[in-house]
Amino acid sequence: MARPESVASGPGSRALVVDVIRSSGPISRVELTAATGLTQPSISNIVRRLLAEGIVREGGRVASGGGKPRTLIEINPGALYAVGVQLGYESMTFVATGAGGGIVARQLVDGASLDSPDEVTDRLVAQFDTFVDAAGIPRSSIAGVAVVAPGPLSADHGAILRSPTLRRWEGFSLRDRLSDRLDVPVMIDNDAAAAAVGEFWTRRVPRTETFASIYMGTGLGAGIIIDGALYRGSSSNAGELGHMSVDLDGEPCFCGNRGCAERYASPAAVMLRAREQAGSLADLGLLFGDDTVAQDFDKLARAAVGGHSAAEALIERSARYLAAAVVSFVNVLDVDRLVLAGPSIAVAGSVYARAVRDRLTESAFARQSHDVLVELATNPRDSAAIGAAALVLQSSVAPGHGPRLVPPRQRAAAR
Amino acid sequence: MARPESVASGPGSRALVVDVIRSSGPISRVELTAATGLTQPSISNIVRRLLAEGIVREGGRVASGGGKPRTLIEINPGALYAVGVQLGYESMTFVATGAGGGIVARQLVDGASLDSPDEVTDRLVAQFDTFVDAAGIPRSSIAGVAVVAPGPLSADHGAILRSPTLRRWEGFSLRDRLSDRLDVPVMIDNDAAAAAVGEFWTRRVPRTETFASIYMGTGLGAGIIIDGALYRGSSSNAGELGHMSVDLDGEPCFCGNRGCAERYASPAAVMLRAREQAGSLADLGLLFGDDTVAQDFDKLARAAVGGHSAAEALIERSARYLAAAVVSFVNVLDVDRLVLAGPSIAVAGSVYARAVRDRLTESAFARQSHDVLVELATNPRDSAAIGAAALVLQSSVAPGHGPRLVPPRQRAAAR
Repeated sequence: MARPESVASGPGSRALVVDVIRSSGPISRVELTAATGLTQPSISNIVRRLLAEGIVREGGRVASGGGKPRTLIEINPGALYAVGVQLGYESMTFVATGAGGGIVARQLVDGASLDSPDEVTDRLVAQFDTFVDAAGIPRSSIAGVAVVAPGPLSADHGAILRSPTLRRWEGFSLRDRLSDRLDVPVMIDNDAAAAAVGEFWTRRVPRTETFASIYMGTGLGAGIIIDGALYRGSSSNAGELGHMSVDLDGEPCFCGNRGCAERYASPAAVMLRAREQAGSLADLGLLFGDDTVAQDFDKLARAAVGGHSAAEALIERSARYLAAAVVSFVNVLDVDRLVLAGPSIAVAGSVYARAVRDRLTESAFARQSHDVLVELATNPRDSAAIGAAALVLQSSVAPGHGPRLVPPRQRAAAR
Repeated sequence: MARPESVASGPGSRALVVDVIRSSGPISRVELTAATGLTQPSISNIVRRLLAEGIVREGGRVASGGGKPRTLIEINPGALYAVGVQLGYESMTFVATGAGGGIVARQLVDGASLDSPDEVTDRLVAQFDTFVDAAGIPRSSIAGVAVVAPGPLSADHGAILRSPTLRRWEGFSLRDRLSDRLDVPVMIDNDAAAAAVGEFWTRRVPRTETFASIYMGTGLGAGIIIDGALYRGSSSNAGELGHMSVDLDGEPCFCGNRGCAERYASPAAVMLRAREQAGSLADLGLLFGDDTVAQDFDKLARAAVGGHSAAEALIERSARYLAAAVVSFVNVLDVDRLVLAGPSIAVAGSVYARAVRDRLTESAFARQSHDVLVELATNPRDSAAIGAAALVLQSSVAPGHGPRLVPPRQRAAAR
């Protein structure tokens, strides 16, 4: 049955056409008709507008059997750039991509830490200017910037609602503050959701696949792609794998629930547990600071992969809890493919992938019908920032029903 | 972004148009254009075909501001009938609906019990004939029959794969056996998925809502409606709420997982526990048979509602486990509205609804963004059969990517 937005003349078809052109490379109008199922007049209309806006361009021609050669349409890579920013407690990652999704610049800077949202916004704005200037991207060709962060967010207000690591940000309308300060459109979204979009685009997965990516930063989340589009749910807070309870009477979580998978599987949880047995990990030089979870976890993961038995036990335990949550997640969504992404699977990703694969093989409800593919992200550390840039491109071509790009506000002349 | 099947000329638009006509009542072409977002030529085409097939008819006319009066289109209620059969261990429910979804006949007969699938198929076929004849529905106007059952199923093969109560059915291709014997199209689907479709249709919920129904028969399942369509997942096995683990080291489940919600919350699980404390329940006259779970559970639920403390404790415990699974389910899907359906919530539905509502209010991840409505089905005992009939109507108008109606096979002349 149709989604409301996906009628021939609506934004859905436009997004579909751009997606197909992006993933196929140069393609003729006739091939586009076949690939999208849209009518030829619809394709002609959409392509005409995309050409006028400079989003696509005409490339070469190919001979067609007997008839006149067909003109190929391709993404105009230099026409539009998108900037994605992953805002974390420990680091901020900036990525810029062209309209085709290829990365043109990347930078890692200090994260939000315990600084006030105002201070961090100042840094983010300054960093954005530096980043864009250094990359040599003309301001006028930036489609927008998406800042992605963990935790529930308000799609309407562009605010981070609650986050265990960004506690001071509750109710701070980051999107509006940025749109006061930046001269490009701005949007705010969830990091795990962004990563799913990025992984889906990068992989050229068939649109009919039910696809999800599990995102492990210092916390734990997921993004869900259904029929080629990010599934957002009612308030853009779908995919909270980390807040599926794996033990209904388990440890209380900041979210209000008990036994959340994140309380056991996430790097933050692993480091809390590691601290309790610091003796057996003394040789690893762990710092156990609030702001060193990511680097401590990397050390621990490296030691685990290297055969350090105490470290191994901690990572295996984390993987076991993750796998338990993933089976429930898969039983609800009946997923075809799962990608593990995020900075925290960069080192010991194989341990997590194996645990997830094994538990799915043993106990996924639909395992007699089909396997679930479990893959690792190619570039797990940058998944969310790359995905954020992809969200900007999608949103600028055809806004969906989730967070939107908001145009820059009138800026004070004094700046 | 578009779903592949929802292009202007595709089946998605057709289903959308029929759905809008069904839920709005008599509607003009102009209003249809506005309500669906389709173009006027698309609406004209689709309506022309639906008129030719007798699925809709022209009704009255309404004056329009200044112009010529508009002809109204409505569902042709006598044109098509659908039969839904809920196949359970203890009972089979037959329901027939007209094309508008209104119930025209209903019958409850003995269930599959431990009989062989062949025997049950014989009964089902005989019962179908009796039912249809008694209802006075002309064979030629039956769009099809959908048989819905618990457990994972093979959409391709129309078979029930594994079910704790229908153990002998594994690998039995019920759909093909029925299509050998019945002279109407046949489909097989999941009972909880069917119930969700039925509840969604009945309620005229806005298509933009993320909607789910929790289905409690002797087991526990759920169906998910996204953008007005049943969400099926990769193999039509989505929505397995009963097989979300609420305790990763909990009791082993027939599905291969541990700590599944169904192992604690379902009537079958509750009756196992009740048996262990039969003494405190002696006054209820429980039978504790394999085939009396549903009736025993009804007695227990009635006693609980009436203030019997041992019964109350058992039902409250079941509700607590259900609520825990529902929170995880809601955190994955970010749901707007949940309906509790199925025969086992017919008596103590309010206890379950309260437990679910309380736990969601306390701990749903997105509770700061929006509430989740929790409602009870109007007709919980027949939800699945009514939904099965709705699936037949949907599938006959525009097949989706899930189970399909298969036409009757050539029948032996001898029958």
